[in-house]
Amino acid sequence: MCWPPCNKTDAVTPSSATTRGRLLLIPNTLDLGCLDDTAPAPALTQVLPVGTVEAAAGLRHWIAENAKTTRAFLKRVAALRPLAAPLQEQHIAVLPRPPKGHGVAITAESAEVALRELLAPALAGHDVGLISEAGLPAVADPGAAVVLAAHRLGIPVVALSGPSAIVLALAASGLQGQSFAFVGYLPVDAGARQQRIRELEQLSRKAGQTQLVIETPYRNPALWDALLQALQPGTLLSVSCGLTLDDGWSRTDTVARWREQPLTLPTDIPAVFGWLAR
Amino acid sequence: MCWPPCNKTDAVTPSSATTRGRLLLIPNTLDLGCLDDTAPAPALTQVLPVGTVEAAAGLRHWIAENAKTTRAFLKRVAALRPLAAPLQEQHIAVLPRPPKGHGVAITAESAEVALRELLAPALAGHDVGLISEAGLPAVADPGAAVVLAAHRLGIPVVALSGPSAIVLALAASGLQGQSFAFVGYLPVDAGARQQRIRELEQLSRKAGQTQLVIETPYRNPALWDALLQALQPGTLLSVSCGLTLDDGWSRTDTVARWREQPLTLPTDIPAVFGWLAR
Repeated sequence: MCWPPCNKTDAVTPSSATTRGRLLLIPNTLDLGCLDDTAPAPALTQVLPVGTVEAAAGLRHWIAENAKTTRAFLKRVAALRPLAAPLQEQHIAVLPRPPKGHGVAITAESAEVALRELLAPALAGHDVGLISEAGLPAVADPGAAVVLAAHRLGIPVVALSGPSAIVLALAASGLQGQSFAFVGYLPVDAGARQQRIRELEQLSRKAGQTQLVIETPYRNPALWDALLQALQPGTLLSVSCGLTLDDGWSRTDTVARWREQPLTLPTDIPAVFGWLAR
Repeated sequence: MCWPPCNKTDAVTPSSATTRGRLLLIPNTLDLGCLDDTAPAPALTQVLPVGTVEAAAGLRHWIAENAKTTRAFLKRVAALRPLAAPLQEQHIAVLPRPPKGHGVAITAESAEVALRELLAPALAGHDVGLISEAGLPAVADPGAAVVLAAHRLGIPVVALSGPSAIVLALAASGLQGQSFAFVGYLPVDAGARQQRIRELEQLSRKAGQTQLVIETPYRNPALWDALLQALQPGTLLSVSCGLTLDDGWSRTDTVARWREQPLTLPTDIPAVFGWLAR
């Protein structure tokens, strides 16, 4: 039916040492980084499928955006399913972190050696998990280069079901969901940011395309103000805050009406912003 | 912390008749329409969080892309959790289906009355579920107009965690995940389709943006051929097929290398296509 042929046995048993392991993309919850250490973590299965939790429990090798949040994730997994190896014996390799900031390009061929090293356990026949601080790995984070390297090396890539703040925010916005773009971060410089917002608004109008951006949480209020200032009054503007958390919320209104409403955005919780020009 | 203030009690108890109910965006699995009636459905919790299943079980009112697949979904929910009302007493209102095809615009103010009618149970204080044939509602389907109407009517919108084929395909592609666009369907006419592919390839090169499209499954092979013909040899081209299914797979390679490999795409299973020009 599909090519390449896969059968159920391949999908559930660990690969033997004579063949390549798989790269499993393990979604994380969207709450880490939002909760202080004293707050109880919500049950993992409220947000992640059991199938994803079980796949995570079966791994011993990880490539992680952040080792600390990966260990926190594994502790929550261990509370539900026995881990294939104790936490202290889990191999967690950390992704090389790109320079902080905006518009980071995908890793070039020059990084091939480092990527190959990260994927060495898969080349040796072990399944490897790729995991982010939050949400789906390789979406809005530096993990894509590892996935692309896996394809180059003939390592099967399997994306497991879980939440992505970007599409949850899109769904909750009510904005055009049949054409949308995620454009990452906007420039920090006020002038450049305003110009970029207007450029994306024109693109939205021309293509009928929802534009989505994220921001470092402490800059949420500044971005909100910039959006209200730069966008046209009739443009629909949406913000989703703390998605999948108990006190999360999503709101959409025209820029004109938003300008009449005071809105205090949190500075410690991720938000996703979207707009659609009409 | 956030505005509007929500507390846990609001999030778990049904709204009283004096206040508005909520619009819950209930993700569906990605397998319906792929399985024949005799094939056993995989366990819902392999792909959906228990929290989502429990929220679905608690509802009596639905707005659905497809009543038949909604009933099939509810049968699978009922196998795990008792439903708030028996299947035959569930209220399932079907979304007005937009004309078949490509580039459907969001519903205009003129449809306000119909949307208000769909949302009447929420206005009367009942929680209402919005559900698609597959994946997240209001993403790549006609549900966004209902969500936008909910925002206009002051009905709280809550997106629940679940799979979206589009972002899972993006994650599994290894293509640029910090800037990506989903552009829906391409034109069916061969000439127009080729022109559109080239236009999107130029946009991808200029913006460093992954472009994602879907196709009606029986046209998967024709779209694949068109992509191989129209795209530049160095462009990275990815296809994901049967995501979250046991025999699902994802592959990415350059167009040049794809041209040397025979690839038989299934005509009965959804696929997501993505490319990144370099």
